[in-house]
Amino acid sequence: MHNDSKHIASAFDRDLEAIQAMIMKMGGLVEAAIKDAAQALEERDVELAEKVREADKAIDQLEEDVNEEAARLIALRSPTASDLRTVLTVMKISTNLERCGDYAKNLAKRTGVLVNMRPIEGAAPSIRRMAREVEEMLKLALDAYIQRDVSMANEVRHRDLDVDQMYNALFREFLTYMMEDPRNITACMHLHFIAKNIERMGDHATSIAEQVIYLTTGELPEDARPKGDLTSQAAGAEDL
Amino acid sequence: MHNDSKHIASAFDRDLEAIQAMIMKMGGLVEAAIKDAAQALEERDVELAEKVREADKAIDQLEEDVNEEAARLIALRSPTASDLRTVLTVMKISTNLERCGDYAKNLAKRTGVLVNMRPIEGAAPSIRRMAREVEEMLKLALDAYIQRDVSMANEVRHRDLDVDQMYNALFREFLTYMMEDPRNITACMHLHFIAKNIERMGDHATSIAEQVIYLTTGELPEDARPKGDLTSQAAGAEDL
Repeated sequence: MHNDSKHIASAFDRDLEAIQAMIMKMGGLVEAAIKDAAQALEERDVELAEKVREADKAIDQLEEDVNEEAARLIALRSPTASDLRTVLTVMKISTNLERCGDYAKNLAKRTGVLVNMRPIEGAAPSIRRMAREVEEMLKLALDAYIQRDVSMANEVRHRDLDVDQMYNALFREFLTYMMEDPRNITACMHLHFIAKNIERMGDHATSIAEQVIYLTTGELPEDARPKGDLTSQAAGAEDL
Repeated sequence: MHNDSKHIASAFDRDLEAIQAMIMKMGGLVEAAIKDAAQALEERDVELAEKVREADKAIDQLEEDVNEEAARLIALRSPTASDLRTVLTVMKISTNLERCGDYAKNLAKRTGVLVNMRPIEGAAPSIRRMAREVEEMLKLALDAYIQRDVSMANEVRHRDLDVDQMYNALFREFLTYMMEDPRNITACMHLHFIAKNIERMGDHATSIAEQVIYLTTGELPEDARPKGDLTSQAAGAEDL
């Protein structure tokens, strides 16, 4: 067993790299989906929204492929505890990415509804800014994974607080619009969901970052999973 | 290797049973959390809501324990492809349960906000009914897992359509209350989130059921992940 360990390790590494390549591809597709979905919303572009909905199938397929290949890798190479942890992390990251893809698809679906309502001034650009922030966080989180870079991972966690703040501001804004004019209510309900879903994508990027920290240091950050959605509570200080 | 296989298999089974016992314990805690959270909302019982928030820590801890034990089991026993699939499924189920626990906690948090607002007539009992349905679905999904019972798993999937319908009805109801009186808007936004989160718990129960089907038959149901939230789209027929 020990004589073979070097050979086994490199076969493992080669297989792992193939799976990581799938993760990076998934990441690229998810980033594009977020960007396109936000643009479709802002430009009221139903065709682009439809494209996002279609593209989600490829993301779902990649997640299945990652899970299958990871299970195959474990069964075939019987990785050591530390290598095993890496493979399980990769599987979790693919789940995080798949969820983000679902949220982007949901955003695109709601665009199809929102084009039939009168626009809420300023909402779409705010949402696009929030989406861009989340898109960058995802990219950073995946880079942090590939480079096992804890400081990059920590930056992702830090930036998630900005996203939460953007969401909280939008929540208050939508409340105001609804109270001003009941005809805004339905559109604002949809926009609010969109904002919430983007905030959740930020949580998934943060979750990837936390897994990188766990993988690299062996410990989760003490204040893991900071949740900045203040709208769910009275005071909220505990969550910052 | 082959001479040992029977011995290895039974050691694997023993370890797996220990992990499954943790899953069942998690399931019990999550079911209690959903029930208590819905009751706290209906009776405007802030203390009970606080209890739900506290209890979530035990659920989170169990998820970590399941992941650790499962990784240890894989590393130690190098399970066959089929046993490995079971362990990976158990890990996914624990993630589903942990997410449900988070949603129950979020529900409890919002109760703390809602007690300071005037009640929306009929909302809390409707939400409690929806929560009870989801609680039963979770119980059924876990029983289906333990008994590898595909027909029970299919019942869970079927009942999820009811939950989606309950959610869609509540969404429309909340819209009406908001349009009738702007003073209802803030409370309805919170109630709507609560309803959406319960609907998501139903999706997690369904996801557990689908994993049971995959584990037992080797195939995911063709129409896996039916999403019944019609509010995100114009027509919605595709999703039923």
